Amino acid sequence: MKKQLQLQDFVDGFKKKDIAILSRAITLVESKNIEHQKLARQIIDTFYKQTGKAKRIGISGTPGVGKSTFIDTFGMSLIDAGLKVAVLAIDPTSQKTGGSILGDKTRMHQLAASKEAFIRPSPSGTTLGGVASKTRESMLLCEAFGFDVVIVETVGVGQSEVTVSQMVDFFLLLMQPGGGDDLQGIKRGILEVADLVAVNKADGDQQTQASIALQEYSTAIKILHHGDSAWTPKVIKCSGLKGIGLDEIWNSVLEYYKIMEKDQQLQFKRDQQLKSWMWSMLMEKVENELTQNDQLNKKLLRTQQELIENKLNIMQATQQIFDSLTHMEK
Amino acid sequence: MKKQLQLQDFVDGFKKKDIAILSRAITLVESKNIEHQKLARQIIDTFYKQTGKAKRIGISGTPGVGKSTFIDTFGMSLIDAGLKVAVLAIDPTSQKTGGSILGDKTRMHQLAASKEAFIRPSPSGTTLGGVASKTRESMLLCEAFGFDVVIVETVGVGQSEVTVSQMVDFFLLLMQPGGGDDLQGIKRGILEVADLVAVNKADGDQQTQASIALQEYSTAIKILHHGDSAWTPKVIKCSGLKGIGLDEIWNSVLEYYKIMEKDQQLQFKRDQQLKSWMWSMLMEKVENELTQNDQLNKKLLRTQQELIENKLNIMQATQQIFDSLTHMEK
Repeated sequence: MKKQLQLQDFVDGFKKKDIAILSRAITLVESKNIEHQKLARQIIDTFYKQTGKAKRIGISGTPGVGKSTFIDTFGMSLIDAGLKVAVLAIDPTSQKTGGSILGDKTRMHQLAASKEAFIRPSPSGTTLGGVASKTRESMLLCEAFGFDVVIVETVGVGQSEVTVSQMVDFFLLLMQPGGGDDLQGIKRGILEVADLVAVNKADGDQQTQASIALQEYSTAIKILHHGDSAWTPKVIKCSGLKGIGLDEIWNSVLEYYKIMEKDQQLQFKRDQQLKSWMWSMLMEKVENELTQNDQLNKKLLRTQQELIENKLNIMQATQQIFDSLTHMEK
Repeated sequence: MKKQLQLQDFVDGFKKKDIAILSRAITLVESKNIEHQKLARQIIDTFYKQTGKAKRIGISGTPGVGKSTFIDTFGMSLIDAGLKVAVLAIDPTSQKTGGSILGDKTRMHQLAASKEAFIRPSPSGTTLGGVASKTRESMLLCEAFGFDVVIVETVGVGQSEVTVSQMVDFFLLLMQPGGGDDLQGIKRGILEVADLVAVNKADGDQQTQASIALQEYSTAIKILHHGDSAWTPKVIKCSGLKGIGLDEIWNSVLEYYKIMEKDQQLQFKRDQQLKSWMWSMLMEKVENELTQNDQLNKKLLRTQQELIENKLNIMQATQQIFDSLTHMEK
């Protein structure tokens, strides 16, 4: 059995750059045990002021686009440039079984072997909102620990991209060299939140295809760009496998920060994200209270029963629960 | 300007089977205007006991799978069998612009021209949760109006399938005759909630491909089936274009109802769905209260400011808002 760590152990461990301690802290963040959660909050409270210095980058793309290889090579190029890189992976694809297709660390051989990197799959089996909140807290811990770049990886299923784009500074979308059909429908909402579209696998036979895709995505981005940001999204060809275009991508990221740090635009973006996060935390808290506070939970169960028995309709039932929640005894 | 309708107008209109009145009622449900919402709730209150008799069927599939053609032909075959069919379309793909790719009624020529059918695109531009709640209310109105089958259509982007599966009895997933790559990652969470996988375009050149896909999906479904339901999901080849396999699909739907109505399993499923719906309604209500109640909203804005200025951390800020919410003045 592992020794029960105290707050001071985490403070010491973070100071000594002990990666196992960071890992334990994230495990606490992800835990559903009330005592663990309490300690996790203390840890985050303690390190909160040391956060915010890392570059927060979201990377997404559908399965098969070469995401793992790209992140592996891209991450290593950052490490070669002297940076420390953390990768957090969110995978909400499987709601029922809680299985994960991103969970496997061995997808990124080089990063997994590097002392300057940290790879962590997301907790699975909860709601996307719940996973997002845990990932944010894990991100803060990685920042406080001293990582320069935190990459949040997600699988391309639409809703999760939007969630991730709300917690990172810069959102990179990896695409296939195909184009055409890919542009319709399903990708549109994702293209709208992308700060950079990287057309991957632009090597060997697929170079012509990649150039066509580059053209098409550039047009799409131009149409979808809303002009509410100082940054104009870019489209860049690359190959994670051959290491092509990675410098160009990183230079774009740096250029983005340069532009967004003018007039405190980045700060404004992060402030907005913080507010939304508070909203989701609040909703989570309401849910916890209703299920864990005995008196409230009794009322909830009674109301649900009346709803099912058709004695109350959906509006009346909702109102009843709302009233008990908002007039709790002190 | 249209005449302002009163509750009685809706009661009369529903009695006379005036489809324009149903349409107006759904418009009220979707409206953000407080007066409209009030009237919408009265309408739903009035008709609530007349709901629940329709078959609720979710149909989903990625763009290009032939969804419109399938629903058009499938819907017409039900109408030929003497049923009335309503189609509600949810499209949460575009979060920013609020554009819709399902909005176009002309996608379903035959149904659009039939007096026994009703087609309605979803309100766009809100959150998936918000759209889902409106769609549920619209579904109830269609049921009270007398539709025998309500089809909820959604575009295949992962999260929305799960949401739709939580409001329908039976979830039908349309797939391409391709297979193979389609089986990995992105489709898994969706396959898990499917009650029937229909391999579309099983005509002409693609018959062999469709047979291969049928085999693959059958295997996948077998692996993913959790056995917590009396129903074992099926895989069926069909062609929306040629009208192949539609009878077989409808017979499966009927068989599903026969099985699920034993031991009140369907009722149990619907009860669970009703409870989840109450949860989302409650969350929506909390959000409305915090933004529309002056006193609460002032506190919210002040706390958000302190959060941004780093005077409060995320946990403290959340706690503060939670306390003001749960101890509202009577």
